[in-house]
Amino acid sequence: MMKLWGGRFSKGTAKILDEFNASIPFDKELYIEDIEGSIAHSKMLAKQGIISKDEAKKIQEGLLKIKEEIESGNFKWDISDEDIHMAIEKRLIELIGDTGKKLHTARSRNDQVAVDFRRWVLKRNLEFAKKIKELIEVFVNIAKENKTTILPGMTHLQHAQPISFAYHMLAYASMFKRDYERFIESYKRNNKNPLGCAALAGTPHPIDRFKTTKELGFDEPTINCLDTVSDRDFALEILFNISMLMMHASRISEELILWSTSEFSFITLSDEYSTGSSIMPQKKNPDVPELIRGKTGRAYGNLVTLLTVMKGLPLAYNKDTQEDKEPVFDSVKHALISIEILKETLKTMQINKENMYKACKKGHLTATDLADYLVKKGIPFREAHHITGRAVALAESKGVDLSELTLDELKSIDNRIEEDIDLSLETSMNSRNSYGATSLKKVEEQIEYFEEFLKENNEN
Amino acid sequence: MMKLWGGRFSKGTAKILDEFNASIPFDKELYIEDIEGSIAHSKMLAKQGIISKDEAKKIQEGLLKIKEEIESGNFKWDISDEDIHMAIEKRLIELIGDTGKKLHTARSRNDQVAVDFRRWVLKRNLEFAKKIKELIEVFVNIAKENKTTILPGMTHLQHAQPISFAYHMLAYASMFKRDYERFIESYKRNNKNPLGCAALAGTPHPIDRFKTTKELGFDEPTINCLDTVSDRDFALEILFNISMLMMHASRISEELILWSTSEFSFITLSDEYSTGSSIMPQKKNPDVPELIRGKTGRAYGNLVTLLTVMKGLPLAYNKDTQEDKEPVFDSVKHALISIEILKETLKTMQINKENMYKACKKGHLTATDLADYLVKKGIPFREAHHITGRAVALAESKGVDLSELTLDELKSIDNRIEEDIDLSLETSMNSRNSYGATSLKKVEEQIEYFEEFLKENNEN
Amino acid sequence: MMKLWGGRFSKGTAKILDEFNASIPFDKELYIEDIEGSIAHSKMLAKQGIISKDEAKKIQEGLLKIKEEIESGNFKWDISDEDIHMAIEKRLIELIGDTGKKLHTARSRNDQVAVDFRRWVLKRNLEFAKKIKELIEVFVNIAKENKTTILPGMTHLQHAQPISFAYHMLAYASMFKRDYERFIESYKRNNKNPLGCAALAGTPHPIDRFKTTKELGFDEPTINCLDTVSDRDFALEILFNISMLMMHASRISEELILWSTSEFSFITLSDEYSTGSSIMPQKKNPDVPELIRGKTGRAYGNLVTLLTVMKGLPLAYNKDTQEDKEPVFDSVKHALISIEILKETLKTMQINKENMYKACKKGHLTATDLADYLVKKGIPFREAHHITGRAVALAESKGVDLSELTLDELKSIDNRIEEDIDLSLETSMNSRNSYGATSLKKVEEQIEYFEEFLKENNEN
Amino acid sequence: MMKLWGGRFSKGTAKILDEFNASIPFDKELYIEDIEGSIAHSKMLAKQGIISKDEAKKIQEGLLKIKEEIESGNFKWDISDEDIHMAIEKRLIELIGDTGKKLHTARSRNDQVAVDFRRWVLKRNLEFAKKIKELIEVFVNIAKENKTTILPGMTHLQHAQPISFAYHMLAYASMFKRDYERFIESYKRNNKNPLGCAALAGTPHPIDRFKTTKELGFDEPTINCLDTVSDRDFALEILFNISMLMMHASRISEELILWSTSEFSFITLSDEYSTGSSIMPQKKNPDVPELIRGKTGRAYGNLVTLLTVMKGLPLAYNKDTQEDKEPVFDSVKHALISIEILKETLKTMQINKENMYKACKKGHLTATDLADYLVKKGIPFREAHHITGRAVALAESKGVDLSELTLDELKSIDNRIEEDIDLSLETSMNSRNSYGATSLKKVEEQIEYFEEFLKENNEN
Repeated sequence: MMKLWGGRFSKGTAKILDEFNASIPFDKELYIEDIEGSIAHSKMLAKQGIISKDEAKKIQEGLLKIKEEIESGNFKWDISDEDIHMAIEKRLIELIGDTGKKLHTARSRNDQVAVDFRRWVLKRNLEFAKKIKELIEVFVNIAKENKTTILPGMTHLQHAQPISFAYHMLAYASMFKRDYERFIESYKRNNKNPLGCAALAGTPHPIDRFKTTKELGFDEPTINCLDTVSDRDFALEILFNISMLMMHASRISEELILWSTSEFSFITLSDEYSTGSSIMPQKKNPDVPELIRGKTGRAYGNLVTLLTVMKGLPLAYNKDTQEDKEPVFDSVKHALISIEILKETLKTMQINKENMYKACKKGHLTATDLADYLVKKGIPFREAHHITGRAVALAESKGVDLSELTLDELKSIDNRIEEDIDLSLETSMNSRNSYGATSLKKVEEQIEYFEEFLKENNEN
Repeated sequence: MMKLWGGRFSKGTAKILDEFNASIPFDKELYIEDIEGSIAHSKMLAKQGIISKDEAKKIQEGLLKIKEEIESGNFKWDISDEDIHMAIEKRLIELIGDTGKKLHTARSRNDQVAVDFRRWVLKRNLEFAKKIKELIEVFVNIAKENKTTILPGMTHLQHAQPISFAYHMLAYASMFKRDYERFIESYKRNNKNPLGCAALAGTPHPIDRFKTTKELGFDEPTINCLDTVSDRDFALEILFNISMLMMHASRISEELILWSTSEFSFITLSDEYSTGSSIMPQKKNPDVPELIRGKTGRAYGNLVTLLTVMKGLPLAYNKDTQEDKEPVFDSVKHALISIEILKETLKTMQINKENMYKACKKGHLTATDLADYLVKKGIPFREAHHITGRAVALAESKGVDLSELTLDELKSIDNRIEEDIDLSLETSMNSRNSYGATSLKKVEEQIEYFEEFLKENNEN
Repeated sequence: MMKLWGGRFSKGTAKILDEFNASIPFDKELYIEDIEGSIAHSKMLAKQGIISKDEAKKIQEGLLKIKEEIESGNFKWDISDEDIHMAIEKRLIELIGDTGKKLHTARSRNDQVAVDFRRWVLKRNLEFAKKIKELIEVFVNIAKENKTTILPGMTHLQHAQPISFAYHMLAYASMFKRDYERFIESYKRNNKNPLGCAALAGTPHPIDRFKTTKELGFDEPTINCLDTVSDRDFALEILFNISMLMMHASRISEELILWSTSEFSFITLSDEYSTGSSIMPQKKNPDVPELIRGKTGRAYGNLVTLLTVMKGLPLAYNKDTQEDKEPVFDSVKHALISIEILKETLKTMQINKENMYKACKKGHLTATDLADYLVKKGIPFREAHHITGRAVALAESKGVDLSELTLDELKSIDNRIEEDIDLSLETSMNSRNSYGATSLKKVEEQIEYFEEFLKENNEN
Repeated sequence: MMKLWGGRFSKGTAKILDEFNASIPFDKELYIEDIEGSIAHSKMLAKQGIISKDEAKKIQEGLLKIKEEIESGNFKWDISDEDIHMAIEKRLIELIGDTGKKLHTARSRNDQVAVDFRRWVLKRNLEFAKKIKELIEVFVNIAKENKTTILPGMTHLQHAQPISFAYHMLAYASMFKRDYERFIESYKRNNKNPLGCAALAGTPHPIDRFKTTKELGFDEPTINCLDTVSDRDFALEILFNISMLMMHASRISEELILWSTSEFSFITLSDEYSTGSSIMPQKKNPDVPELIRGKTGRAYGNLVTLLTVMKGLPLAYNKDTQEDKEPVFDSVKHALISIEILKETLKTMQINKENMYKACKKGHLTATDLADYLVKKGIPFREAHHITGRAVALAESKGVDLSELTLDELKSIDNRIEEDIDLSLETSMNSRNSYGATSLKKVEEQIEYFEEFLKENNEN
């Protein structure tokens, strides 16, 4: 196959190379960014007198026509065009003739790739930020309705202390807020214009990179072109940020799966967001959280992919970097839909408050309260801990929960325990009233905190 | 959307769930294995009297008709069918009516997934083995033509000792032979039949798993169904074996890239397997080895993906495992084409023997020979090493190669050096005559070894 | 710091380089393999007449003395010795004088590293194989005692069908048996002698690699020295095999954690293999399975480490490969202790059979049996599945398990259900009698299968 | 072994569990942070009246004594203490008696782990920022001395266009500046106080988290304690930021290795930062950049380790997270020394300007200039590219560089080429004068930019 760049080549490329080499099957995803970039470039070329205003206008009209063709499905994709940049340029030349050839003045495919891909990623950062805020809003809403719903707080998946379901949901609001911040900061750090870097060293044409910077919504042009053409930090950052996001999503998913078991029965997923079995008619499966948990693997794998690609690459552009787009497209697509469907699953699930409450009656959840009671009586914590351990052992031997021991029984362990002892779940929960804790008052503070956050950042 | 399994559900599933949940966009890759599996299952059902012979015949005809529809592009794919298994079964029922419903007797989607995917992977193991042997053959052929082509053997990318290009190529033959062995052994270890495991616990129907085992070319049925339905070891093994293969391919690729530089110029890639630059007309770029090196990232990433998915999954099937197929399909596809194109690139490259030889004149390649010469004179190795170090320093100070020092100059370093000293490249290379070494004689032995290997395994 | 190799260097190395470069802090782990390798090398040198028998004897005595010094803690480790090979050689020269300098004749550090590390890894492969068999034995023993212990078999962590605890344990026996096979096969594939490859190209000395091969217990010498000195496939294989092993261990760990929850209470871990909380006196935490699950991360990470190191390395030895040992040592150490402690945890845990049985009364575990019953009456499976779905819905509306519906109630769903219907757990479980299934008979077959396996491989 | 938490346990823990479970062999690294955290906690307890001022004073004195003991090597480490927190607390009780038992009031090991580890990581973020600025300064200094040193700018490792060595060094300044920003931003984002979260739900004691926040230099307390005790985002961020840093370091390392080859000879590493060979006396090996490149693997692997650990963990603390520290300690240690030694290697290397310049005479580096010349004559770029391709082919057929073709020869290709054509390296380089490009003027701007950056951030 003879190429646009084929001037010095005596033979065309092998057919298998065309297939192996071509990025067009996946980089057509970048068509909007490529056309926007070319329009900005042509405007700048005209402003700088490198091409005429008429030429720029023809080029821009041609590009918009191509956009239409692509969006209406009328564009003819051809593997031998190698990539989206070549495909669009070739079509432009078909449409408007020799003027089309002038568009590539003062730029290279390397900086086209750099600007298109970077802008695509930057847009996705903002899209993630928006989706995450919607998800946080769902956690906050569930929290508002469950301020007094008590469930066993767990460590090591063992009953530990009574907490409110609101508090549990707000833990996830807090976690996902960090994800929001990471996407926004990565956006800000990387919002720099690569266009005008040409192949690796800049260009002798009198271009104005500040003009395209403004046109494309960047904050400033990048400072060193050699670095810029092979910089993929922005791509690695989104892959990492998605890995973190999915890791967090895998944690709430694990809990949804556990809570849906026959043994826990803390929640019931809605029919709309559950599936059945082809062979066991009674089954209702939590496919959504299972798939989200599974898709964490994909997020991690894609991060490893690009980290591996970039290792040890000399400056500047190397073809290896063509392997950058597919992992990013894949992670973005699967994470966006995961967050969307997680949100819907949470919104539609039924919360089985009685089951949560009933579960609190097992596991001596208020043991710490007994220890703390003893500490307030002046007993050193380590001793109080031992006394409580013996009380728990007594309760177990009687087959009851610690809170069900009689005062006499408690006194038989240690007679400093008196009538003022209150080991009820509600008292226990609300006694934890330090900043960030599970008491009703503190949970209300947290709800306010997250509502404030959602309001402040509502433009993004 | 109402489902085949929807009996107990009061609401259909949400549209976004259908999209999220469906594996059909990628698992249609398994259509042949699914149809072959169903045919084997139906034969067994008939043999066991679970369905009639006529029913089996109708089912088999229907399945073959579906195969035709798929291969001719006439099959209607529908996302709401969830997966390839449901899609084919639904179509079967359309085609042959209620008899079609009997096919799913005594099996579950879980064991369909297990048998289809495993057989697809097993076939690919053999395909890789074949491709790798073709690649080894190319290395052997280049070796046969370059038994006396000398180039600088390197460690730390520094000139070390003169070796033949044949020897260098056979290093890769040796490396890729280990890949061959891994694919073959993984095939043998995993060639066990999962069909008949049903959902997780086997089936009360009087099936015969040995019958389907034979029909589908397996060695034996798996021993515990609970393990089988969530076993993905075979998939992880191919992902690891591909990672190793691509790691090896990345090493020869790195060398092809280095050898193609202006500085090395040890080889010239053919025009057919090179590309040009859109902006720099003089460029001839080694895109093929760069892309292969880059695709190593993908292989590693896909391995991490599935390892992550499988971590901590309780028995038996969990939906997370649906994430198993895409990484495997992706790794297989890219590695197969990488090996194919690597082979062609090697076959068509030009070997610049003079440049290789010229390069040997830099870097004092025969310094070890001087040290070894001194050792044979009875000087302990560590001392000989020091004496040679001083001779090298002398050569450097004179701006010549060690082999170009005069006898007098050598004697000025140590007068135990006498007239019988011979530091020529050919003598040096052929003196390394231990088993597995670079001398002509040993290289011929190695060529014979690999030709024997290729002959012995030519049925795979 | 001046070095043994410093002949041509005008300046010594910087202190920070000594620290950065040295591998001795971790590669002293290889001291036995290094000494054994040197003894074998010296025997061969003497046999070939390269050194005298007396010299060989002195060298061997010196080496055994050094072994004693190391094992008694009297060896002086010095970071400036760089690595275990230099440290031992330097000490040998101190102990026996100039004869010690002859040991390094006809070898290089590259092949010392290669032979020492490979043998260390090969030994560990056999150690893992042994440990895994012990673990399998524990699963088999638990199975033998629990052939009629029924628990809910799950898919998607939802109750699916009744299975025996024996069957569940044997799923793990089956899984870990594949690990056993991988370690053994990796041992066999890699049991080849690298010694004698020297730096990269073999040696001009008349060595006999078959002699050291036999001496060190290898099957044959490697075929190409250039490949051999930078081959780390054996190390990557053990890292992968450990990743698989730990992945499997993380799965049983996840189940042990779940089964230990207040909600499941299927098992009670022994006090000896549990821990408490510093603040919550009632807690009994499953730290062992949690840590094992966590250590899976380490296994995966170490695999990624070495895969990354090896990517794109040109032939032959590059210093990057020094990074090969720590990940392997780390994975081996943590995986060996994990398997050991997993075994003890399983052996000492209490199985709460009543709780398992009670759990089976929830989740309509015998729904598939109803469907299968209907199929046997001639109803196509898909219809039977729907009918059963309706029966499940009826049971749920009445708040009972499917098995608790009266015959009249069942008939109200479909009057083809008759008196011969038996939906009890025992009947259900034992009806699954296909090869590899959960019935008592099949489970006994499986126990026999694994006992046979343990017996056959008892020499490893 | 009986434990502080052993009250309800009838048996002590198994010895192997003590070893398996203990984190003290590695978490003693946190002793300073643990003692500082305890001092801050005790001050707050006193201020809030939870303990008396005298008790607080005794506790603080005890803790400072322990710090001394540790730093002087007199502290007795005991594996059965489990972790650094228990070890210090136990010793405190030994030293000051029962008062020591009061320190643990209103806190849990979970929040001790959280605060100690987080502060350790935060400090390292600032340490990395400092080290990276020092490295950038070295690049800037080399740039200042090499503004007119010309070398071949490369893409695909093929000669592309002439650039200055200053420009090449500044590409790395630009790259590492992004690393600096990531460490600083991670510091800011995570500088929140976890102390006071207790086990998972806060505490009933009237603590003041704002007091410890101020005392320990945090910006604010964390908002939700359930999230906080299992939040490891800060640790994952530093692992990712180190992976990026090492990936960048691997790129300059690859170039240093290439430039040190006999074929390139663009630089000569200093003796102080090079090593020799035990067998080849002439070798001078670039061990430093090779090891740095290799250590990239470790950075990636450690990231994968912790990502894997965190996947799918339910709230709140699980023992799995104990696996968080070792990968972080390992990555931090190796990356800090890598950056330090990279800096020294760069500072001491010799730049072989003539070799760089000579290399520019190969590869038709000014071909783009010819194309650009033609474009300025009004020829569309794509045509100009083809004309230049033919000129390159002509030069190759004559065995000369494009810049060495006579005007007549150039005119024979296209007669629009006239006397004003200037294809010299200097003219070519300086003509690339767009923002961020390689011309002398733009490089001076970049130097100023980075000097400004170094000045502005000199407090960190």
